[in-house]
Amino acid sequence: MIKTLYNVELIIISKDGIRDPEGETIQRYVVQKSTNNVRETRAGKYLLFRIESNSSEEAQETVKRIAEEMRLFNPIVHKIIIRVSRSEGSSN
Amino acid sequence: MIKTLYNVELIIISKDGIRDPEGETIQRYVVQKSTNNVRETRAGKYLLFRIESNSSEEAQETVKRIAEEMRLFNPIVHKIIIRVSRSEGSSN
Repeated sequence: MIKTLYNVELIIISKDGIRDPEGETIQRYVVQKSTNNVRETRAGKYLLFRIESNSSEEAQETVKRIAEEMRLFNPIVHKIIIRVSRSEGSSN
Repeated sequence: MIKTLYNVELIIISKDGIRDPEGETIQRYVVQKSTNNVRETRAGKYLLFRIESNSSEEAQETVKRIAEEMRLFNPIVHKIIIRVSRSEGSSN
């Protein structure tokens, strides 16, 4: 069976209500030096996987499993966001 | 004029063709311990801004300006991705 190449994004970010010192620092010492329109800044980690899979659901499940098994995040303080798109083969 | 609250995501990641030692390390020592289906892993920075603006275009422009003026990335080696969505007021 020929598998398809997917781009799967994994975003790891503090849960709402959990303090985010990095985001607070960027907000205070970087963003607010430039504009007054930003109410909040949150900082997180971004990982992009190019993954061969039979379906977008399977690609998403694989990344979720890697994130949990390999402890890429701490479920007590972090939430994860996973987004899947088909890779067009071209890079941008 | 009443402004709308937007969520603007700023993703900072190595350009294609620029080496990404962090992504390579995660690929080799974390991902490949778990699965053989992932062809490549790229690592980047994720920032989320909650911003008051008159339009999504203006919100996007503001974040682009902050990123450039405040040197949140190095345009020689990084590319940025900016995504805007309306904030629903609720957090998730």
